[in-house]
Amino acid sequence: MHAARPSEDEIIQKYFAPLAGPAALGLLDDAAAFAPPPGQDLVVSKDMLCAGVHFFADDPPGAIARKALRVNLSDLAAKGAVPFGFLLGLALTDDWTPDWLAAFASGLGDDAAIHQCPLIGGDTVKSPAALTLSVTALGSVPAGTRLLRANVVADDFLYVSGTIGDAALGLRLRGLPVPNWSHGLSAAAQVFLRERYLLPQPRLGLRAALLGAAHAAMDLSDGLAGDLAKMLQASGLTAEIAVADVPLSAAAREALAQEAGLMETLLSGGDDYEILAAVAADKAAAFEQSAAAAGIAVHRIGIAARGTNPPIFHEAGGRLVAFKSLSYRHF
Amino acid sequence: MHAARPSEDEIIQKYFAPLAGPAALGLLDDAAAFAPPPGQDLVVSKDMLCAGVHFFADDPPGAIARKALRVNLSDLAAKGAVPFGFLLGLALTDDWTPDWLAAFASGLGDDAAIHQCPLIGGDTVKSPAALTLSVTALGSVPAGTRLLRANVVADDFLYVSGTIGDAALGLRLRGLPVPNWSHGLSAAAQVFLRERYLLPQPRLGLRAALLGAAHAAMDLSDGLAGDLAKMLQASGLTAEIAVADVPLSAAAREALAQEAGLMETLLSGGDDYEILAAVAADKAAAFEQSAAAAGIAVHRIGIAARGTNPPIFHEAGGRLVAFKSLSYRHF
Repeated sequence: MHAARPSEDEIIQKYFAPLAGPAALGLLDDAAAFAPPPGQDLVVSKDMLCAGVHFFADDPPGAIARKALRVNLSDLAAKGAVPFGFLLGLALTDDWTPDWLAAFASGLGDDAAIHQCPLIGGDTVKSPAALTLSVTALGSVPAGTRLLRANVVADDFLYVSGTIGDAALGLRLRGLPVPNWSHGLSAAAQVFLRERYLLPQPRLGLRAALLGAAHAAMDLSDGLAGDLAKMLQASGLTAEIAVADVPLSAAAREALAQEAGLMETLLSGGDDYEILAAVAADKAAAFEQSAAAAGIAVHRIGIAARGTNPPIFHEAGGRLVAFKSLSYRHF
Repeated sequence: MHAARPSEDEIIQKYFAPLAGPAALGLLDDAAAFAPPPGQDLVVSKDMLCAGVHFFADDPPGAIARKALRVNLSDLAAKGAVPFGFLLGLALTDDWTPDWLAAFASGLGDDAAIHQCPLIGGDTVKSPAALTLSVTALGSVPAGTRLLRANVVADDFLYVSGTIGDAALGLRLRGLPVPNWSHGLSAAAQVFLRERYLLPQPRLGLRAALLGAAHAAMDLSDGLAGDLAKMLQASGLTAEIAVADVPLSAAAREALAQEAGLMETLLSGGDDYEILAAVAADKAAAFEQSAAAAGIAVHRIGIAARGTNPPIFHEAGGRLVAFKSLSYRHF
């Protein structure tokens, strides 16, 4: 062991205490405590992220930290919740350096401030093999208003935020061999797609639109096709989706122009962290207006329907997309 | 990949949904939601555990699960909290088997039931290297009553629950080479010490005694000497401890009879998951009676004092214990 290296307590006090909210008591105790806002339900999300699976070990440390927080904030956003605070579980491999940890804490602190979601507790331990993070994010919604994925109603309009499939392409740009379709891609498109993989954008600004108009919502982490299938299965419904209406970035369109077969990757690749929402037809205009007021693009991609088959994706010529796999499989 | 292996959703539905509390909605959603009990503060604890660091990868899977939950329940116990529910982050290596996971879930379910602390959410992912778990446990205390470690008052009596040092010996019995002192140890003592390492006993039953009488409390995870030093440093105090008053199990006394030098291991080895509490002298009798009524042994080991030096451990002959290290160092 390195005698000069800081202890767990020193790590906490040096790197993480500056990020702490009042509930954390300077991270000097074993457990955070707080009084939840009166009349609110608490919403709790927890994700695990492992180097080599959910991010690359050589990603910028600040980006790793921010992604770990943001994928949880994305869950809160989908439930219509306001973030309250988060706990960080961090298993560091033995080769960590003070510079790495300082950059990690700095990125985490920036995102905690941006999203008004302070650190309220956690645990820092040694990992024998791979850097592993677990963030637990807490938020609140007015009692009884939390959005579920299982409450889609037949004939609801189905919306997604942002653009779909960018992160899946960004991940493939990190792989070897370099994909053929990347050779014809502009440098700007490559940077954009990589950034979309590296740093999700939790759509917390969509809260008012969702709470005001949506029957159901979830965030897209494993791919639109698979996550939509989960939402509809939980609701006992199916859906008809127009592939031409799925919003794509200019960069994704560039990639598609190189290789049309990438459409399945866009629709099933995962890591979008966009919101999928089911909205009653008579609230669609209000939903769109509220989202626009929040500066978040939403696009209607289809309609929920009676039936229990997996959702059907129609391409422009009337052809149906046949997926090899609806979504990213963890196992 | 193994096509026949279950997906993440199938894993959740088969193994974990049976453990879920009402707040989890069958674990079908991305985030748990619940209304905290009115007039209560929430208490949140989060620990990370890695195979090869916090447990052995070949420990019984049910014991691994139970330890992950119990170390968090021990944090709640130290704060005087009643458990409410927990979230499980589980990063499985690729060699997991259905039998392993069934035994893991079974142990977890047993403990969730025993402690009335249902599963309310989580995340199951693939780990590239080492089995890693992160449990976030939620509990509640009447508003404003949570116990802190920083509130020790000079002249408080210092108590510990249970017996100290058993788990540290149990861990050493697992190591190679087999320690010399183990050769003279009875089989019963070896089994007892190993069990104390494998399966902590969260002292949730001490809640009434703590809330009624203690100024401060924490759970002992990194060793009595080091954790006591942390508590007193946070409180701006020191302490005098009589080593002869530190409660030891019959098995630990057997080991000490083989090798007197083990006393330092007992006092600084960690993994006790007992409660350390500071109690005003005029409430000591009430504290002891309340603990006895709950069936939990507590022993007074010393007294808090003005000063800022590390706590002093007196041995029977008046000699002071000189620690090489006050506690387990993670880094």
